Amino acid sequence: MPQPGPENVWLWIGTALMALGTLAFIGMGWNEKDEQKQEFYIITIFIPAIAATSYFSMAMGFGLTEVTVAGEVLDIYWARYADWLFTTPLLLIDLALLAGADRNTIATLVGLDIGMIITGLVAALTTASEAMRIAWWGVSDGFFLVLLFVLVSRLTAQASDQPGEVGSLFARLRNVVILLWLAYPIVWIVGTEGLGLVPLYWETAGFMVLDVLAKVGFGFLLLRSRSVLDKATPAATEPEATAAD
Amino acid sequence: MPQPGPENVWLWIGTALMALGTLAFIGMGWNEKDEQKQEFYIITIFIPAIAATSYFSMAMGFGLTEVTVAGEVLDIYWARYADWLFTTPLLLIDLALLAGADRNTIATLVGLDIGMIITGLVAALTTASEAMRIAWWGVSDGFFLVLLFVLVSRLTAQASDQPGEVGSLFARLRNVVILLWLAYPIVWIVGTEGLGLVPLYWETAGFMVLDVLAKVGFGFLLLRSRSVLDKATPAATEPEATAAD
Amino acid sequence: MPQPGPENVWLWIGTALMALGTLAFIGMGWNEKDEQKQEFYIITIFIPAIAATSYFSMAMGFGLTEVTVAGEVLDIYWARYADWLFTTPLLLIDLALLAGADRNTIATLVGLDIGMIITGLVAALTTASEAMRIAWWGVSDGFFLVLLFVLVSRLTAQASDQPGEVGSLFARLRNVVILLWLAYPIVWIVGTEGLGLVPLYWETAGFMVLDVLAKVGFGFLLLRSRSVLDKATPAATEPEATAAD
Repeated sequence: MPQPGPENVWLWIGTALMALGTLAFIGMGWNEKDEQKQEFYIITIFIPAIAATSYFSMAMGFGLTEVTVAGEVLDIYWARYADWLFTTPLLLIDLALLAGADRNTIATLVGLDIGMIITGLVAALTTASEAMRIAWWGVSDGFFLVLLFVLVSRLTAQASDQPGEVGSLFARLRNVVILLWLAYPIVWIVGTEGLGLVPLYWETAGFMVLDVLAKVGFGFLLLRSRSVLDKATPAATEPEATAAD
Repeated sequence: MPQPGPENVWLWIGTALMALGTLAFIGMGWNEKDEQKQEFYIITIFIPAIAATSYFSMAMGFGLTEVTVAGEVLDIYWARYADWLFTTPLLLIDLALLAGADRNTIATLVGLDIGMIITGLVAALTTASEAMRIAWWGVSDGFFLVLLFVLVSRLTAQASDQPGEVGSLFARLRNVVILLWLAYPIVWIVGTEGLGLVPLYWETAGFMVLDVLAKVGFGFLLLRSRSVLDKATPAATEPEATAAD
Repeated sequence: MPQPGPENVWLWIGTALMALGTLAFIGMGWNEKDEQKQEFYIITIFIPAIAATSYFSMAMGFGLTEVTVAGEVLDIYWARYADWLFTTPLLLIDLALLAGADRNTIATLVGLDIGMIITGLVAALTTASEAMRIAWWGVSDGFFLVLLFVLVSRLTAQASDQPGEVGSLFARLRNVVILLWLAYPIVWIVGTEGLGLVPLYWETAGFMVLDVLAKVGFGFLLLRSRSVLDKATPAATEPEATAAD
């Protein structure tokens, strides 16, 4: 089994920060009794908990495999995709609850997201040629662009019915997600998975910083606003409430 | 990594037709504002989009593996099962929404369907002997037969409460699903996965025609009937509406 | 492909008992018309049906792989984890419906459960060293302990609003789950996956007895109490009913 190289330091730092984020969010949500606010806490606690487990698996070497492309051996941390498969839909659900989105919008976002992550995994594991890897990266980017379009059009339109402070928090978090998520395909394509311009050590550091910001950072921005979450909940964040009208 | 042979032409045709179907359904649904009709569009758009991705992966060779059974090497397109795992539940959900089915019926259909696809994948990947492969094909058929029973008994009973035109559309689409889906295990067992009576080239063509009819054809039959979908929606297609009575 | 050894007898007995349990539960639920009681039957029928398929795959040798740890070859029945990934959430959902739990509690239990099973699979497949395997077993136990905490605190609190007989049935089934599930990590750590104190033959027997008790035994305790299930259903077992208030 391949073993992590010096990039391991970033994986251990990632494990620690994700674990700390998990504990912090548990602490922040411990006494929350309101059922709809609990929903934000539960989703936001699971995000770094899953990431901590994934980082631990990469630091241990379990989440690492070798892929041979045109005679060159690449170290591929496949466990990232297992992490992202669960955490990115949860991040989108957090955003969608804040926007008071309907069930169709949530299903569309989650479906596009899963398409993006699975085709990204295919890109990472493709052995046929570097061109094929980049072709799959392009397919994954296609899903991502449609997802971004739904975020800025439909989801943003739905959020406009939310009270002012909720709308501002939604807009800020949506922008955080868009900016941070846009960096992922760039790190991928310049890193060892893609063109190999950036070595694995710095690529791993880059993904770690992005992951911590997009998960723990995002969670702090969301959960510190208890009073805003209060106002978010009366809106039609629940599909049932809509259907029961 | 094994590479597709001359059957590749069918995989590329499948990719193109699924992509065209996806674009057509997006175009048809673009201006739909009604939340419950949108649900049909969203589900029906994801079906060929997933299939297009899967066909692309098979045409590229990523979705292909080799399985050695009794000294004979079989080319197994495993990506079909990844496609079917998601698309066949979505097709059943389309049918169930049209029938105004309750949540229990939907869960039963989806559970049986997943059982059918996973055991079908086991059949395709089994290396022990041809007899074992056929035994697993039989287990998968068992799930399929129970699924058909639920379709023609319980789901059809629930659809009988829908208005006349909705009931007719349901009956037509249900029959399309039953007839086309019955052809899949036959192609499998006469093809290279089973008895090997039909070569991979024609088997791939057969699956492609079935997939396009069962996904793009099904979708056109469903979505061209905008006025019928209008009448479908007031019924208790939402589990919430039932619970909120 | 590795083939099962003499422990195969337990796998065939497991297959038969799970299949019999499935048929018994189908028979018990056949004439049930009440939609909310049907939910218990559907969930409880799928549990042994999935387990029967998994036991069949292990008895056939498909669900078995070899893992080499420090030069020693371990026979790992990975199909157990595919079974547990689906059946343990279903068991928890049965319990949660009986307790009249809200959606947040159900999501928390299912999320912790999936974390427990996936990290358990990682433990079983880890090749780096025995210490790493035990470390992952510890992570999985961590998820399990949090799950147990949610079961005895939050879920039990929610069940206290249920009528007396429902509360007693919940308490009995919750205790059955806690006691039986506590035995799994013990069998794992003393068995061939862990310290190797118990040979594969007796470990397989142990898991089989636990699986049959925790699935078929649990199901009988739950479903034989038709009159209790009657009283369970008017409570807010449906998240929709809560939201529609």
